[in-house]
Amino acid sequence: MTIEIRRFSSAQPDYAQQMDTLLSWEAVSDAQVQKTVSDIVFDIRTRGDAALIEYTNKFDRMNVSSMAQLELSQEQLQKALDELPAERREALLLAAERVRSYHEKQKQDSWDYTEADGTLLGQKVTPMDRVGIYVPGGKAAYPSSVLMNAIPAHVAGVQEIIMVVPTPDGELNQLVLAAAAAAGVSRVFTVGGAQAVAALAYGTETVPGVDKIVGPGNIYVATAKRMVFGQVGIDMIAGPSEILVVCDGKTDPDWIAMDLFSQAEHDEDAQSILVSTDADFLDAVKASIDKLLPTMERADIIRTSLTERGALIHAQSDVDAIAIINRIAPEHLELSVEDPQAWLPAIRHAGAIFMGRYTAEALGDYCAGPNHVLPTSGTARFSSPLGVYDFQKRSSLIMCSADGASELGKTASVLARGEFLTAHARSAEYRIKD
Amino acid sequence: MTIEIRRFSSAQPDYAQQMDTLLSWEAVSDAQVQKTVSDIVFDIRTRGDAALIEYTNKFDRMNVSSMAQLELSQEQLQKALDELPAERREALLLAAERVRSYHEKQKQDSWDYTEADGTLLGQKVTPMDRVGIYVPGGKAAYPSSVLMNAIPAHVAGVQEIIMVVPTPDGELNQLVLAAAAAAGVSRVFTVGGAQAVAALAYGTETVPGVDKIVGPGNIYVATAKRMVFGQVGIDMIAGPSEILVVCDGKTDPDWIAMDLFSQAEHDEDAQSILVSTDADFLDAVKASIDKLLPTMERADIIRTSLTERGALIHAQSDVDAIAIINRIAPEHLELSVEDPQAWLPAIRHAGAIFMGRYTAEALGDYCAGPNHVLPTSGTARFSSPLGVYDFQKRSSLIMCSADGASELGKTASVLARGEFLTAHARSAEYRIKD
Repeated sequence: MTIEIRRFSSAQPDYAQQMDTLLSWEAVSDAQVQKTVSDIVFDIRTRGDAALIEYTNKFDRMNVSSMAQLELSQEQLQKALDELPAERREALLLAAERVRSYHEKQKQDSWDYTEADGTLLGQKVTPMDRVGIYVPGGKAAYPSSVLMNAIPAHVAGVQEIIMVVPTPDGELNQLVLAAAAAAGVSRVFTVGGAQAVAALAYGTETVPGVDKIVGPGNIYVATAKRMVFGQVGIDMIAGPSEILVVCDGKTDPDWIAMDLFSQAEHDEDAQSILVSTDADFLDAVKASIDKLLPTMERADIIRTSLTERGALIHAQSDVDAIAIINRIAPEHLELSVEDPQAWLPAIRHAGAIFMGRYTAEALGDYCAGPNHVLPTSGTARFSSPLGVYDFQKRSSLIMCSADGASELGKTASVLARGEFLTAHARSAEYRIKD
Repeated sequence: MTIEIRRFSSAQPDYAQQMDTLLSWEAVSDAQVQKTVSDIVFDIRTRGDAALIEYTNKFDRMNVSSMAQLELSQEQLQKALDELPAERREALLLAAERVRSYHEKQKQDSWDYTEADGTLLGQKVTPMDRVGIYVPGGKAAYPSSVLMNAIPAHVAGVQEIIMVVPTPDGELNQLVLAAAAAAGVSRVFTVGGAQAVAALAYGTETVPGVDKIVGPGNIYVATAKRMVFGQVGIDMIAGPSEILVVCDGKTDPDWIAMDLFSQAEHDEDAQSILVSTDADFLDAVKASIDKLLPTMERADIIRTSLTERGALIHAQSDVDAIAIINRIAPEHLELSVEDPQAWLPAIRHAGAIFMGRYTAEALGDYCAGPNHVLPTSGTARFSSPLGVYDFQKRSSLIMCSADGASELGKTASVLARGEFLTAHARSAEYRIKD
């Protein structure tokens, strides 16, 4: 049995249009979603816990009467970790340890310097006080995501990490709880959707308001995050996950097929693209796909994803392949080539770069160390993997000496008067020496 | 003549409520604004230049028929700079030079490290390709803002810096043009409003689409930025400017009054707050305010701002004053005290900290070096001054050795199977050595 996957070449005349079609994707947040979310946010802001309980009972088919029933204790989290089968607990703790040690390298320090006249300039770097982590419930509740979102905040020095995770029909995912314990989460509320985002943004009687909200969610969660942006910070609005594999044709085609599957199995909208200068290799990978697909647990999801959004692209040259990389600005880029480091300087946009035949993207999803929260849908053009820097902020430092203020005051005065801001000018002029 | 300014003490029973009232501020983006902006964005996306010309003619009372009439040449910018009076040109160039040299210190470099088994991990830091800078027109067209927005992008290594600035009734501000030349702006279009934001976000036949849009604007601009977020990156949505001055009572009260004015003169919504443990000093500053206000060009704006949004707060202790600082998370914090460095460790949130009696905030607005684009309305809790880091982005680097992939593969396999992602598991397992 064979499946249909889009295939084209960078040499064909309609190549640019093929690429546009392949990459077109837009999350639909229509007026109705906007209105629903806006109502929920208003309701949580004005009625707090009561509204949060109502929405949770309604949307997650729960039947609780107090917020106490919607909070998990540290004991529950620790118990979940302790009771995991040993192999899983060790894997989780090893992953947490590697993620922590990589992120330690991202910590940024305050700095300052003093000019000849004694004026000090610099920047003070501090952690945020309290952040919120949204963890999706149901089939997309991934313990690895808990690690990837919470550990950078923990490394940054954030004192309170508040996690929300919906538990539809009351179903708890013990691995998610265990991951919260391993990652240093402070408090966990079993709420989700726009109501959870609103609660974190504005606070309720029970849920503390946070400074920033990170983590993926459905269209209601994404719309709510966009709406509360400004009241709190948010991370990127995530689109479907995608991978671009570039292969010189010398990696085992089964490996490459499975790498493409590993992205496609996330959901029907996920996107897996293979680029090679070797047309025969594209055939070989296609054969591997057809051979391996029937053996996959999530064959239906993978088939839909590959058929609807996948592609095999024949590049005319390595230069062509690099142009494709930069056009796509992929979330995950696998460079399954002989000398991946030689490719690096030309690559301008990618969330994460998996280099060499051994570096399966799946290793990065779990335990290599770097974050798996990455910019999707081409947003690697302007955004970065989630990191410690997302939980730190800066304050400029300026301390003028009497001499420095006098000199700078002259320049400031001229410029302020050019802008007709005379109070600015006079404030500066007071500091000019006679 | 005396003016009314809110005054209260941290000791009074309704203090917390007084603070809440003082700090309550919300930009009103109502359904009508949303609809208008949404229509404009759609129109620009679908009809490009034609729509951009129409909206510009309509909103800026222009009468142009082609985009060529809405673009300024590099020669025009350079001419504006060359023809400035010498004093102004020198001040502008000195400011640009100081801003550039401070921001050079913010540049972040790529890094990597190699583990014992040969696995390489790191992060590659690159500039964005092309960014857009929104510069407001009319009375808020500040040349200093052009420097502050464009120079960090230039230092980051951004190749194309596209500036938009509306010119209502066709009026050009020569200082703004000169600043664009001094800051290294690539192209300037004389368009503004939501239509300019949409053009930058999606591109038109003439305006190149950018990767990120920064710069302040009115409610239409802010709403449009929020709407295109995701298609492009954006900076913070700016609220009215504010200053918090903390003084030990030993600075000349005229200086402090003028520092408060320098914020208040921006616009009626601007906020100036003075905190002191010395009640007599609050009286003295109030007397200076009453004395100096009639001498100010923008007396009416200052009076409205101070009456509607200003405050003189009597703190019971330095500890109290620090609590007020962290509660407000001010955009500008002036520490007009004897030993400002002793205060620093306790200050958790502030956009920029002006330390000591000589460091008037106005010096930082123009030429000290640090950026004057700062987080407003308490957003210093989670955001930072505009900087070079806003124009750089990161790609994670992972290159596993055969040994590293084998070991990591075991952990990834266990975790992936815990999440029922078997393609992930099998992709990792292919790399495990027998």
